[in-house]
Amino acid sequence: MNTQDRIEHALLAAMSLGSMAGPTDAPDHKDCPPKLQAAVRHAVFPGGARIRPQLCLAVARACGDKDPRLADAAAAAIELLHCASLVHDDLPCFDDAETRRGVASVHTAFGERIAVLTGDALIVLAFQTLAHGAEHAPQRLPALISLLARRVGAPTGIVAGQAWECEPYVALPAYHRAKTGSLFSACTEAGALAAGADPQAWQAFGLCLGEAYQVADDIRDVAFSAELLGKPNGRDLALHRPSSATELGLSGAIAHFDQLMARAVDAIPPCAGAAMLRALAKAESERLVPQATVRDLALAA
Amino acid sequence: MNTQDRIEHALLAAMSLGSMAGPTDAPDHKDCPPKLQAAVRHAVFPGGARIRPQLCLAVARACGDKDPRLADAAAAAIELLHCASLVHDDLPCFDDAETRRGVASVHTAFGERIAVLTGDALIVLAFQTLAHGAEHAPQRLPALISLLARRVGAPTGIVAGQAWECEPYVALPAYHRAKTGSLFSACTEAGALAAGADPQAWQAFGLCLGEAYQVADDIRDVAFSAELLGKPNGRDLALHRPSSATELGLSGAIAHFDQLMARAVDAIPPCAGAAMLRALAKAESERLVPQATVRDLALAA
Repeated sequence: MNTQDRIEHALLAAMSLGSMAGPTDAPDHKDCPPKLQAAVRHAVFPGGARIRPQLCLAVARACGDKDPRLADAAAAAIELLHCASLVHDDLPCFDDAETRRGVASVHTAFGERIAVLTGDALIVLAFQTLAHGAEHAPQRLPALISLLARRVGAPTGIVAGQAWECEPYVALPAYHRAKTGSLFSACTEAGALAAGADPQAWQAFGLCLGEAYQVADDIRDVAFSAELLGKPNGRDLALHRPSSATELGLSGAIAHFDQLMARAVDAIPPCAGAAMLRALAKAESERLVPQATVRDLALAA
Repeated sequence: MNTQDRIEHALLAAMSLGSMAGPTDAPDHKDCPPKLQAAVRHAVFPGGARIRPQLCLAVARACGDKDPRLADAAAAAIELLHCASLVHDDLPCFDDAETRRGVASVHTAFGERIAVLTGDALIVLAFQTLAHGAEHAPQRLPALISLLARRVGAPTGIVAGQAWECEPYVALPAYHRAKTGSLFSACTEAGALAAGADPQAWQAFGLCLGEAYQVADDIRDVAFSAELLGKPNGRDLALHRPSSATELGLSGAIAHFDQLMARAVDAIPPCAGAAMLRALAKAESERLVPQATVRDLALAA
């Protein structure tokens, strides 16, 4: 099974676990409020690039993939936590985004109440998925849960990242690290942990990638049309959110992005899968900040 | 240490774990956005009756309390999940409650965005607390997490209970079971599981108690003043929510409550702590639906 199929398969298994898979797969699905069930599926399928679970599985593979069931569960859990953060981030009280991944956001399609509950259900399902994947070998479960909780919750996870948007003063690096870097480092650390390797050695790779993704997000918010973005653009400026594109200018932000990607590649620990990970980083760099639509545009400005 | 102290101690330990304990206890507390930190504490302290963790620890004791550290973690995790559900339940898009436990609700004190994030952070912290409490003996952790997830998430946990409020048709027993019964059965089941006993045998006791609590809530919403309640009263009627007090009338709802409490007591499995659990149920019955302020009032009506 290739990585993309492995991820979708793990996410479908998670849906079944939460009785979200529909009539044929889940005997007790009839007990689930229909709008909640539809909204949870809407939040997870179809996905975006699934870069976080890809990264988690790539690192697990680079570390020998000694427990594929646990690695799959960790990858799916991280994607569910990511989807939860998107659903809550899109709420009217935060970004008030009407679209996400080119379709209606969860609160637009199902209402604000269901959107709050969908995020909650996804967080719960993430930990349930992880526990299910560790049933055969629970000794790594406490460390994995503790890791994901630290990278997602307060004080320095993505929840904290969103909470910095409610403070009068925000240090940009701390904000980016919490909002995006933390979950990316969860990917590399969890991939290593699930394969029985030292997560600490993989933290820097994830953190640099995460910071690069946040900067890419800022760049795309300025340089991409809403259609290309699949969600409203120009939101950072409109909502007075900290953004490297407004702070450094478009060219400065692109240079910063390139530095972060180079630092990420340098941070890959020596391992059999190093070349594969470098290729993944290179492909992502072009996908995120493409030559034709962003770099040439910045040069012409 | 008595049960109440044990609970507050376990909750404070959970706060420390999430770096929510303040400057002296948490070296990295400075990294946490201050409003989020204050809001999480506001949501958990001072508590209400802490009946859920009390019930969890009472059952663990009745089953021999073989792993007190794990039982404490389970009790704290359940209370944190309960607090999370209250914070989200109070949001403007749900109950729009300005007060809770006699003080400002989280969204009133800290704003809607921080309230959404506080609920998220509490859910994450609950699973983190459970994992931390199982570090020394992880073999029971998968079952405990799976249990809590099923009782809290979709399709039949408290998240589903709140989601039923967004559906055009709701069956009252399914709604009550999801919204309150499920977390009460989590208390008795988790208490048993943490002590190495069979959780299945303890499910009915928790479910009956939970249904009784939901009916008591409906009764108190009608019969208590806002001051006595510590939150706005008459909300079920105002929000067209399913309520046994509006469906059965006040006297009918009280009779239903008494039946459920009697069924709960009958469901206590034979064990050394049975008398202690019966006494707990009796005291709670009077605390929830007091003779002087509710039963006499219903008789006089």
